[in-house]
Amino acid sequence: MVSIPHSATPATLGGRDLVLGLDIGGTKLAAGLVDPDGRVLSLLRAPTPAARAGWRQAVDDLFALGHRAIEMAGASQARIAAVGIGSGGPLDVAGGVVMRPPNLQAWDDVPVTSLAEAAFDRPAFLENDASAAALATHRWGEWAGTEDLVYLTISTGIGGGALIGGRLLQGTSGNVAEFGHTVVAWNGRECHCGQRGCAEAYVSGTSIARRAQEALAAGRPSALSDLAVVTAADVSRAAADGDDLSVEIWRETTAILGALVTSVVNVFEPRVVVLGGGVTEAGHMLIEPIRTYARAKAMSPAGRTAEVVISGHGSAIGVLGSAAVAMTQLHIGSVSE
Amino acid sequence: MVSIPHSATPATLGGRDLVLGLDIGGTKLAAGLVDPDGRVLSLLRAPTPAARAGWRQAVDDLFALGHRAIEMAGASQARIAAVGIGSGGPLDVAGGVVMRPPNLQAWDDVPVTSLAEAAFDRPAFLENDASAAALATHRWGEWAGTEDLVYLTISTGIGGGALIGGRLLQGTSGNVAEFGHTVVAWNGRECHCGQRGCAEAYVSGTSIARRAQEALAAGRPSALSDLAVVTAADVSRAAADGDDLSVEIWRETTAILGALVTSVVNVFEPRVVVLGGGVTEAGHMLIEPIRTYARAKAMSPAGRTAEVVISGHGSAIGVLGSAAVAMTQLHIGSVSE
Repeated sequence: MVSIPHSATPATLGGRDLVLGLDIGGTKLAAGLVDPDGRVLSLLRAPTPAARAGWRQAVDDLFALGHRAIEMAGASQARIAAVGIGSGGPLDVAGGVVMRPPNLQAWDDVPVTSLAEAAFDRPAFLENDASAAALATHRWGEWAGTEDLVYLTISTGIGGGALIGGRLLQGTSGNVAEFGHTVVAWNGRECHCGQRGCAEAYVSGTSIARRAQEALAAGRPSALSDLAVVTAADVSRAAADGDDLSVEIWRETTAILGALVTSVVNVFEPRVVVLGGGVTEAGHMLIEPIRTYARAKAMSPAGRTAEVVISGHGSAIGVLGSAAVAMTQLHIGSVSE
Repeated sequence: MVSIPHSATPATLGGRDLVLGLDIGGTKLAAGLVDPDGRVLSLLRAPTPAARAGWRQAVDDLFALGHRAIEMAGASQARIAAVGIGSGGPLDVAGGVVMRPPNLQAWDDVPVTSLAEAAFDRPAFLENDASAAALATHRWGEWAGTEDLVYLTISTGIGGGALIGGRLLQGTSGNVAEFGHTVVAWNGRECHCGQRGCAEAYVSGTSIARRAQEALAAGRPSALSDLAVVTAADVSRAAADGDDLSVEIWRETTAILGALVTSVVNVFEPRVVVLGGGVTEAGHMLIEPIRTYARAKAMSPAGRTAEVVISGHGSAIGVLGSAAVAMTQLHIGSVSE
C-alpha cells in the first residue's frame, strides 16, 4: 500500500464539508479525503484484488482504504459530508450500481453506493471515473472554470468524460464518452468489448504492453526481451533509449492517440483535451507527438482553439474526481476560475 | 430545377410565422417555406454551381431559389419572419460566415447571413446543416421531443449534429459533431481534410463512388464498368443485383458505417441515431446491416437503448433544418412531443 500524506491542514474547514473520494480502477483502488478547495488531505492506494477474489473483496479493500484515509487526515467522522465513487463503466449511475466493466471482471451489478452509504453512514454518489475527472478538472487547477473540456484517461483501459457548457455529458443513462470504444481501425484488432478495432485494443496501457509482447513472441529482437513482464512504461522507456521495436510501437501508439484526440476535437470542439492515467507518466514523449498530430490534422477552427495537455492533478485525479462528483451533487464549494 | 409543391395551405397561419429555409449542399442547393408545424409549403432544388463559377454565383442561385419558393407557396413577403441557412462546415456560426468547407471549394469566408438579410429584408441565421437537421428532428416528426439524439448525414460528405438534453452541442465556435472527420482507419485512405483514415474518405457518397471507380480502374470485372459515371446509388443498386465488386464495396461501406454509428452510440449514448442524406435512399440495404452491427457491438446499456433509423423527413430535411434554426432563435412555434 502506498501512502501519500498531504501537508494541508483541515483546521480551516467548517463542519461537514469534507468528502471522501473512492476510486475503483482496473489496477488500483484509491481513497482520499478532499476539501472544497480541492486539497487532498490524505491519499491511499492499494492494488485491485485479482478477479478470482470476487468483487466483495475489492469492496472491502476499498472501504478499508476509505476508513484509513479519514483517520490519516486526522478528520473526525462528523466532518465528512458524503462519499464520491468513481469507476470505469458501464454503470447504472442513478441506481449507484457498477454493472459489468470489462476492466473489472469480477464485478456484476454491484450496488456500490448503498454499500458505501451503510459503511460510512453518509450519502454516496457514483459516476464514471473519467466523467468524474472532467468535473474535477472543471473545478480545480489550471483549467478550472473551463466550460467545454474533454478528459481522456489512458490507463488499464481508456475512458473519457466531456463537459459541455459546464455540464457533464450524460446520455440516456450516464454511459458516455467511451472514447476507448470508438473504432480507430474498422477491421482491426479484437477488443474485449466484442468489437474490432477499438482504440482501447491498441493504446490502453494493457494493449501497448500486449502489442510489445506479441512482437517479442513473434521473435522481434528488442531490449524488452530481457524483461519477465513488459509494461507500457517499459515500452516508453525503451523507446526513449532508442530500442527499435519500442520506437516502432511507441510511434504507432502516439499516431493512434493523435488520431483519437483529433476525432475528439472534431466532434466536441472543446477548449482543452486533458489526458490523464498511468500512460501519461511518459510525459513529453507522449504529449508532444499527440499535440503535433492534432494541431496539424484537426479541422479548423476547432483545431486552432483546442489545447491538448496532460492533467496537472497527477495520480490524485481519481479521488479528486470522485470528490467532485459528490460536491457537485451536494452543491459544496464552487467552481473557481 | 426540381419543384415539389406541397398541399398544406398557409391560410391557417398568422402573420410573420413562416420561415424561409435555405440549404447549401456540396451537390444541391435547396429553398423552401416552412410553417411552425413543420409543413413544407414549397420546396425547390437546383444543382450547386461548379466551383469555378465562384461563390457569388452559388449565392445568387440560392437567393433566386428562395424568392421563387416564397412565390410558389403563395405567401406574401409580409408573412416571412426570418431566413434560416444550413451549410456544411466549418462555419463562423455567430458571425454568419461560411468559412472554407471542403465540399464547397469556391466558398471562402462568405458572410452569407448578412447577404441574406439584405436580399430578403429579414433576420437570417446560419447553422451547420447536420446540426440544423438535428434541431428539425427534435421539433417535428416521429422523433419530435427526443432530447438526446444524433443526426448523421451521409451525402456528398458526412456531417453530424448532436442534441444533448434538448440543446444543440455547439463547442467553442459551433464546429462540432464532425463525424465524417473521425478516424475509422488510423493509417488509411487520405481524406481531403488533410488527415488519413477519416470516415468521409470511405463512406460519403463521393467516396463510395470513388472506391468503386478505383476498383474498376484496377481492372476488377463488374456490371458497373458499363456506366460512364459511377455513383454511390449505382453501387448500392448493383450490390442488390448481386454484382460481386458492388457487394464487396457495399459490405465494407455498411461495416464502416456500423463502426461509426457504434462509436457515436458509445460516445453520446443517444436515444436515437437518425441517418439522412442521399446515400440513405438505399433504404433497407443500408440501415439493416448498420443496425445489426450497432446492436451487436455497442457497449451495454447504451447499445440496447439507442435506435438507429433513417430520417422520415427525406429530402425535405435540409430546408426543415434551416427553418428550425431560425424558429429556435426567434422562439417561433414549439417542440411537439
